[in-house]
Amino acid sequence: MASSPIRAVIGQAGGPTAVINQSLVGVVQGCLEAKGIDQVFGVLHGVQGILDDQLIDLTDEEPATLERVALTPGAALRSVRLRPDEEQAARVVRALDRHGVRYLFYIGGNDTAETALLLLQAARERKQELQVVHVPKTVDNDLAVTDHSPGYGSAARFVALAHMGDEQDNRSLLGVKVNVIMGRHAGWLTASAGLARESGESGPHLIYVPERDFVMDEFLSSVSDCMERHGRCVVALSEGIHDAQGALISESRELDNHGNVQLSGGGLGEHLIAQLRGALGAGIRARADTFGYLQRTFPGAISEVDAREAREVGRAAVEFAVAQGGVSGSVVIQREKGREYRVRYELAALEDLAQKTQVMPKRFLDGPHDVSPKFLEWLRPLVGDLPRFGTLGHYPIPPA
Amino acid sequence: MASSPIRAVIGQAGGPTAVINQSLVGVVQGCLEAKGIDQVFGVLHGVQGILDDQLIDLTDEEPATLERVALTPGAALRSVRLRPDEEQAARVVRALDRHGVRYLFYIGGNDTAETALLLLQAARERKQELQVVHVPKTVDNDLAVTDHSPGYGSAARFVALAHMGDEQDNRSLLGVKVNVIMGRHAGWLTASAGLARESGESGPHLIYVPERDFVMDEFLSSVSDCMERHGRCVVALSEGIHDAQGALISESRELDNHGNVQLSGGGLGEHLIAQLRGALGAGIRARADTFGYLQRTFPGAISEVDAREAREVGRAAVEFAVAQGGVSGSVVIQREKGREYRVRYELAALEDLAQKTQVMPKRFLDGPHDVSPKFLEWLRPLVGDLPRFGTLGHYPIPPA
Repeated sequence: MASSPIRAVIGQAGGPTAVINQSLVGVVQGCLEAKGIDQVFGVLHGVQGILDDQLIDLTDEEPATLERVALTPGAALRSVRLRPDEEQAARVVRALDRHGVRYLFYIGGNDTAETALLLLQAARERKQELQVVHVPKTVDNDLAVTDHSPGYGSAARFVALAHMGDEQDNRSLLGVKVNVIMGRHAGWLTASAGLARESGESGPHLIYVPERDFVMDEFLSSVSDCMERHGRCVVALSEGIHDAQGALISESRELDNHGNVQLSGGGLGEHLIAQLRGALGAGIRARADTFGYLQRTFPGAISEVDAREAREVGRAAVEFAVAQGGVSGSVVIQREKGREYRVRYELAALEDLAQKTQVMPKRFLDGPHDVSPKFLEWLRPLVGDLPRFGTLGHYPIPPA
Repeated sequence: MASSPIRAVIGQAGGPTAVINQSLVGVVQGCLEAKGIDQVFGVLHGVQGILDDQLIDLTDEEPATLERVALTPGAALRSVRLRPDEEQAARVVRALDRHGVRYLFYIGGNDTAETALLLLQAARERKQELQVVHVPKTVDNDLAVTDHSPGYGSAARFVALAHMGDEQDNRSLLGVKVNVIMGRHAGWLTASAGLARESGESGPHLIYVPERDFVMDEFLSSVSDCMERHGRCVVALSEGIHDAQGALISESRELDNHGNVQLSGGGLGEHLIAQLRGALGAGIRARADTFGYLQRTFPGAISEVDAREAREVGRAAVEFAVAQGGVSGSVVIQREKGREYRVRYELAALEDLAQKTQVMPKRFLDGPHDVSPKFLEWLRPLVGDLPRFGTLGHYPIPPA
């Protein structure tokens, strides 16, 4: 009797990114080339799809199709937010066992790393031969251990480009502009707005991240100072900014004219504009934008380095998994020392990433509302070259 | 005594676009080449800057600087919203007279065309030798006479790309997604979301523009139908949607728990999500994004055709102005008949554009919530090629 084929399964979870399918294709290619793997399956909607028997065969996908899928934002295998409990985890690994699956590659963030760990433990408990490798992705860049995460560079590129354009808009029609950026607990994505600055005059003039407590009075007086200095003010801030007690500013309550508590409707930007009008005068031109989901899937702002690394973490995941007869863990990116930007891939223990949040270190921040030059230097290679804009000279004509 | 030099002045007004500086550079280049013009000035903040003596000399700008400025979004000469009254108009033309200005090029939308007309009339009244040429720009595409306006193609490209990405996001994590797009009176920009569709399954599934009255019950039942058919629903709608009485949906009022009138805070998207939760159940996954200012200045979505035409309308403005010893009017784009996309530039009377709003014609709309194939065919050349995405095949694995 021939031995049964050895199978690998790939799933995707959490919020998608612009390059998450690069990782998917990297895993597929790695599996097709790996000696120890005979067939590669995908599962729709992550672990939910394993419970629901939603497996598809990826072994015979055309290389051209895979390359086109790699360039497509969003999760080609569809995503899921499910964090299985122990009973579900046991059901998942039993289903994988029935399908002869020896390797599970799970692409996602820190929740996904936790699920991967749970599945690994469930398999170990029943002495099932299963390796689980977590393939990192997140626009928030909040995964532990790794220097940075695939998905972040492209989202950061979107935020930087958006601020480059918005800066020109704000120069054209002066006023206060507040941009609300994704990031509940970590300010990495908001901080990338700093790359948009071309000179000391350029916005964003103020950058607020959740790593610092947000003090409304400091914000209002900083905007006021900025208006006096530049005649305008562009502010980038995280949706997750909070006060010293940890309460989200977006959930601030205020009394309406009737003395009733009023929710600001999720509109952090609107709330801050109202505060600014109260402090600086109702006549001030003040606008807010919330960048929303465009940050994670806009097709016109993909970073080449990010796309390449996303592919490579997928391939690396397979290499690690089949090495030494089978290993589990999470693929992390380490930056090589030296001037030139180079990285290597390593495998970390799932325990070191599961449910951990990496916030920005102090050396990347500067005072209550800025990032440091060190941070921008660290970030630049991940985002790639940005356009260089032009400015007219100033040759004033004397009054006639 | 040598005759005094003949001068031209350029100004920019209204909301900026991603290619408004292409037109500026087109006018500068046209003036530098025109035989009848000796010097070219810019004015900061449009007519306001003429009143405030904020003229700068553009005659000696380096060609390389101009080319870089052309690639920069936003108004390099800064913008203004001022619509001068008759007294201000008279002061503006007197100031131009003192500076020896014989040609004024004013880049902007239909308000700007009105201002141009007012200035022309003020000059005619005092028998001043002044030609005023309006150079069109608007992301809204609502200018009369012209086939389309510079600025629209790039904004439409942003909206189409954003929906291509958002569609993949929505496929990944199913639910309702509502995208609110610029456009108070005309739906051109919202309608461009239709270009994002790759197949009959693709979103945006529903497109609502101000040219049609918005009926909340129709909206709620259409979303419900779409959820049943596709398990998800992407909606693109204009900020200017209104009911049959003309009242903006964004200004809908509802009673809160205490019976007080509550404004929905400008959050049209939030308001619609609340309505959807009420109709389809609170458990539904529903999200809204308001694209905001990114639509008009994002540097990563500029249409090549739009950039080229924006430059050409600037050059054409100068050619018309100096032809036949001086003509005033507004540059319009006419599309040549035939398969291949080609345009020619003409000069229309300022009266024909001033304060007029061109809405979408009936043949470009389809039912209460869609655009027609004719519209997409008309739009495609203005936006340029879009990326082609990939989809995995579906080769299901039977349950084990």
